Amino acid sequence: MKIVASLYPAESLQKQVRAEFPDLSFSFYKGMKELGDEIETAEILMTYGEDLSDAIIEKAKALKWIMVMAAGVEKLPHEAIAKRNILVTNVRGVHKIPMGEFAIGYMLQYAKQSALFQTQQQEKIWNRNVTLRELYDHTLLVVGAGAIGSQIGKYAKVFGMKTIGINRSGNRVEEFDEVYPMEQLNEILPAADYIVSILPSTELTTGVFAKPQFSLMKNEAVFINMGRGSAVNEEDLIEALNNGELAHAFLDVFAQEPLPEDHPFWSSDKVTITPHLTGISRNYLKRGLEIFRRNLHMYLKGENKFENIIDVHRGY
Amino acid sequence: MKIVASLYPAESLQKQVRAEFPDLSFSFYKGMKELGDEIETAEILMTYGEDLSDAIIEKAKALKWIMVMAAGVEKLPHEAIAKRNILVTNVRGVHKIPMGEFAIGYMLQYAKQSALFQTQQQEKIWNRNVTLRELYDHTLLVVGAGAIGSQIGKYAKVFGMKTIGINRSGNRVEEFDEVYPMEQLNEILPAADYIVSILPSTELTTGVFAKPQFSLMKNEAVFINMGRGSAVNEEDLIEALNNGELAHAFLDVFAQEPLPEDHPFWSSDKVTITPHLTGISRNYLKRGLEIFRRNLHMYLKGENKFENIIDVHRGY
Repeated sequence: MKIVASLYPAESLQKQVRAEFPDLSFSFYKGMKELGDEIETAEILMTYGEDLSDAIIEKAKALKWIMVMAAGVEKLPHEAIAKRNILVTNVRGVHKIPMGEFAIGYMLQYAKQSALFQTQQQEKIWNRNVTLRELYDHTLLVVGAGAIGSQIGKYAKVFGMKTIGINRSGNRVEEFDEVYPMEQLNEILPAADYIVSILPSTELTTGVFAKPQFSLMKNEAVFINMGRGSAVNEEDLIEALNNGELAHAFLDVFAQEPLPEDHPFWSSDKVTITPHLTGISRNYLKRGLEIFRRNLHMYLKGENKFENIIDVHRGY
Repeated sequence: MKIVASLYPAESLQKQVRAEFPDLSFSFYKGMKELGDEIETAEILMTYGEDLSDAIIEKAKALKWIMVMAAGVEKLPHEAIAKRNILVTNVRGVHKIPMGEFAIGYMLQYAKQSALFQTQQQEKIWNRNVTLRELYDHTLLVVGAGAIGSQIGKYAKVFGMKTIGINRSGNRVEEFDEVYPMEQLNEILPAADYIVSILPSTELTTGVFAKPQFSLMKNEAVFINMGRGSAVNEEDLIEALNNGELAHAFLDVFAQEPLPEDHPFWSSDKVTITPHLTGISRNYLKRGLEIFRRNLHMYLKGENKFENIIDVHRGY
């Protein structure tokens, strides 16, 4: 059984994997190009999920399992994979700690006016006449409540926040006081002080946040997008911010990345930009390889109890 | 029984107090000057604690209880109060939510590089090559572990941090994995990633953080002072930061406030300044008056079970 990777973890991590499966052969490459013809005979491929194409899937005649070391799977050649019935799993959950921390960090940045203090310091201004807020007793709404949302909810609850989640089913998710189905988004929006979108990029999530949604938000509401840019109508958002329909937006993801230099987000003081990295962590591959190792045990046993199986048609 | 205040809570809060004690007379003033001669016959005085003097205590012949609506009591005329055996209580604990939130906010600001992203945005730079850290699995050391420290510890634990507290006794405090007495500070410092000082200003805490302490910190350690400026030797701190003996300092309190315009802290990119306000909260007087009301019930019953009795000699 040949296992190849178009990514190259630290030697110590490679060693761990090899030690756990001494009878298997692992080859790690710094990219798909370096991997080259090895793909033809590989049964298992580990990839970040952005280097696959119909041609590569066709070439990979022995391929049975793609382990995507990322959460987003929208760049996979879905049809080619589905036609061959190749198993796809990802590292869902691996982002929950860094992204959960980022979400609370954004909220505290706003509540505690960090940007203002940075500006005051640059100008050597000692001004205590600043409106400070608390997370305590405020309401967090997470749209796309899954593993990451639940982690944010866990943090938020210890700060004394009320936590509301929205997901497809409206089924209960840990750490949320209430969970509603996507259809009820507009009903719930007016209650939220902080709205966090962790929606993936699918046909169903495009433009979920547009003019009607922003106008339903509290004027002092803060919108955080750390899912995918496609969930947001960016023109509507900038207009709503300018009109004071919500107070601030923290954006890590955008319709076009890198964010074009002439985009109005850059110069708005009601927008805080981070360059799509809330999920990045020094521990990323370590945590991802833990999932891979657990799944590999299942694969070897022939058991179909994999973590994070992806329905390539649905897109998550 | 005459109850006067040299501070003026919102009408709604005054109303609450009056409703709870309909037989008592409360007079709220916008300052000690406005309060004027009323002090001569007052039995209970509510104050922020910065407007008292020997002369006023002498004038306040009927005074039996000073309710300080602040945590710091260093500006009280200690001797005059002690000589008259006047009861002093404060609002210890009322700061724990805003200060606890601020502490986590500072830590996340550092771990998630908020200042760098703010600068990048100003320059319209999309740069993802940024070292991001996690609170997870890092060690928090709180020096002066009491009500506020315990709150910080509570938040920190949900982020997966190890929590160590230091206080006078070394006695166990909730939310800390380990607690040590002040004498062991130097032994513990090398283990900490985040060091938060919440030390009050007393004779024993002056200059607790100086050259030897900074040199014992990890090079990547972050020092946060939200207690009193007197606990820190500021020259030693700026030198240690310049030498890379620690990575960053978040400072809310200073030897001299407002911080003088020519102070090197202002222009250091390894220092983040907030102007002594981590304890400020919209809910401050509301929470403080809750303590006052509970204490007033004790006072009326003649029971000596007051919350937050201050030993004016000791200074806390």
